[in-house]
Amino acid sequence: MDKVFIVGAGMTKIGRFFERSARSLFAEALWKAIEDAGGLKPGAIVVGNMTSSVLMEQDNLGPLLADHAGFRGLPAFKVEAACGSGGAAVYTGFALVKSGLVDVVAVGGVEKLTEGVTSEVTKALAQAADAQYELIYGATFTGLNALVMRYYMEKFKYAREDFAYWPLRMHEYASYNPYAQLPRKTTLESILNSPIIADPVRLFDASPIGDGAAVVLLVRGEERARKIASETGRDVLVELSSVALATDSVDIASRKDLLTMESTVLAAREAVSRADISLRQVDYAEVHDAFSITGYLALEDIGFAPKGEAPKLWKEGRFGKGDKPEVNFSGGLKARGHPVGATGVYQVAESYMQIRGDFPGFKASSPEIALTHNIGGVGTVTAVSILKRVK
Amino acid sequence: MDKVFIVGAGMTKIGRFFERSARSLFAEALWKAIEDAGGLKPGAIVVGNMTSSVLMEQDNLGPLLADHAGFRGLPAFKVEAACGSGGAAVYTGFALVKSGLVDVVAVGGVEKLTEGVTSEVTKALAQAADAQYELIYGATFTGLNALVMRYYMEKFKYAREDFAYWPLRMHEYASYNPYAQLPRKTTLESILNSPIIADPVRLFDASPIGDGAAVVLLVRGEERARKIASETGRDVLVELSSVALATDSVDIASRKDLLTMESTVLAAREAVSRADISLRQVDYAEVHDAFSITGYLALEDIGFAPKGEAPKLWKEGRFGKGDKPEVNFSGGLKARGHPVGATGVYQVAESYMQIRGDFPGFKASSPEIALTHNIGGVGTVTAVSILKRVK
Repeated sequence: MDKVFIVGAGMTKIGRFFERSARSLFAEALWKAIEDAGGLKPGAIVVGNMTSSVLMEQDNLGPLLADHAGFRGLPAFKVEAACGSGGAAVYTGFALVKSGLVDVVAVGGVEKLTEGVTSEVTKALAQAADAQYELIYGATFTGLNALVMRYYMEKFKYAREDFAYWPLRMHEYASYNPYAQLPRKTTLESILNSPIIADPVRLFDASPIGDGAAVVLLVRGEERARKIASETGRDVLVELSSVALATDSVDIASRKDLLTMESTVLAAREAVSRADISLRQVDYAEVHDAFSITGYLALEDIGFAPKGEAPKLWKEGRFGKGDKPEVNFSGGLKARGHPVGATGVYQVAESYMQIRGDFPGFKASSPEIALTHNIGGVGTVTAVSILKRVK
Repeated sequence: MDKVFIVGAGMTKIGRFFERSARSLFAEALWKAIEDAGGLKPGAIVVGNMTSSVLMEQDNLGPLLADHAGFRGLPAFKVEAACGSGGAAVYTGFALVKSGLVDVVAVGGVEKLTEGVTSEVTKALAQAADAQYELIYGATFTGLNALVMRYYMEKFKYAREDFAYWPLRMHEYASYNPYAQLPRKTTLESILNSPIIADPVRLFDASPIGDGAAVVLLVRGEERARKIASETGRDVLVELSSVALATDSVDIASRKDLLTMESTVLAAREAVSRADISLRQVDYAEVHDAFSITGYLALEDIGFAPKGEAPKLWKEGRFGKGDKPEVNFSGGLKARGHPVGATGVYQVAESYMQIRGDFPGFKASSPEIALTHNIGGVGTVTAVSILKRVK
């Protein structure tokens, strides 16, 4: 069966764009991707989004975005898997292309969080949790992640300070990323003195609220991909080698182990196996760090670090420039930003550009194999993709 | 490339189930489908749903349903295309199976409208329209469809009474359907005297508010499908021969022609072409009649009736038992019911059973080729599927 390739990517800067609409952001990202692919137009649009129904009072988002971007008529629909919506859209787009149903698919994600005031956004994001088993008791999304962080600290004997090295490095990387919401370096002192949001999660442990859109264009067949690459003056082909999706319970009380994101374990294992590589071959990774604790759990559950050791290894400098894998040079959700349903697509776009060698931020060391990791809920659903450089 | 087959279907009765949750309804439909397929378990779950975010305050619906039904771990996510969510889920599930990504996919739809009081439901359903261009002016979904009906009456010279024959027949058919929300016959008098909802739409022109879930199981490859059919004692194979999706503007003001659902024209044409049949070969159809006017427009825009003539032909008795095609023997959205995101899956399940010959309601005349037609918004998005009997 023909392989799937990424042939273009487009992103908006992430920020708080009170004066812009979701359709405007999406059209910008889509047309940047089309331009990036030498003018290649999509035959279908799949869009990852979480909060349009609640914050924008807008369903039927797919056709709305397609029409505004100039593609009235095309197949277009929304895929929702909470913060993993972007990853689920990539998964869906891969299937649409691979199946032969569509030749060129635009996989996008968009989120417009500044449609709501803070309390509305907090409520909208909390809907990633179980309304009947968790929200009814007053849980917020940050609160649930704080429980996980607290338990991790107790079980593996970490102090609050040990978590500060994640945001420290993310802000450093983001300072090079023109698309980042928080492109500025910070200090350990700032991190450790930032306000408590839900003990032990402090402000700097949490990803910011922001708007943004990202799009990647997928095509089927090496010949077509090579033609586009050559037309756009590039000699690097990037295959979307595999995608995998896995789930866990939504409510965290019924997990087998609160400190293992089983969905990540399953999805990473399957994506690696389908790509016919070993995890050790991964040169570069973008992982989902909605909170500092989430970033560390991601490294462990993907298999990059032994359970309980990620904060220690990270503090020692692992996963930085020159290591294998290099991780989150975009700045991660923490500092690049986390426009919820778009995040999983940003990760794929960034990894694609890192492999191409023209990511406009902090550059990876010529990666050949990259992994993206996007979750929804407190580890409820995970999408993992493997990208490969093809000579 | 291997063909896709439907090997099992399950539905709940549609109704106002205040005491039941979406996860309970979905699990019932899924397990009925599994039983129907001789115990075949899915490898992924795609669920069509529109209103969970607003009425249930629940996102991440895919993992929630998968877990409750006993399938924690499986790939599971939600597809949203307003009232066309079920059809978009079928489209997505087809791609997942066809691509080789998953061997057995459960395509489901579920809607729990009785989570909200009437005003909340009216608001939630109106979100199929354009929030910035239409809702802000106070439009409701029924109001927008009323505009279309009024214009149709003016342009093609129909009286209010000419529309009554659609609900009359739907109620007749639904009276045989054990899954229908309104399984009772009615009279022209009742229809014509029913209250006005949004002039000229009367109560009996509109589909009811109800809860329900439906699931079909899709597999790849004739050999596997034949094995399952034989294990379940059936000699009929049903191929999901093609799926197509197309869109139009969300706001109706920017349509080329208010009385043509361009998305239906495009999707029907593509589905028929991909199935390598002509429209005249279609023996049976389930079409989307959210309102009487929608049913007539559907017949015209699919190509079963010339523009402006569907109400006349229908009144003369066309599209009934023994005609070609026979239409909506389920009772349609009007009387079988319209659990929004599940409707497109009900249509496929019903058509599948009609081809198998064991639909438990009003029976079609041994159809070999069936077409399902599911729209979201006022014709904004249309999903069309073609099912074929394979000897």
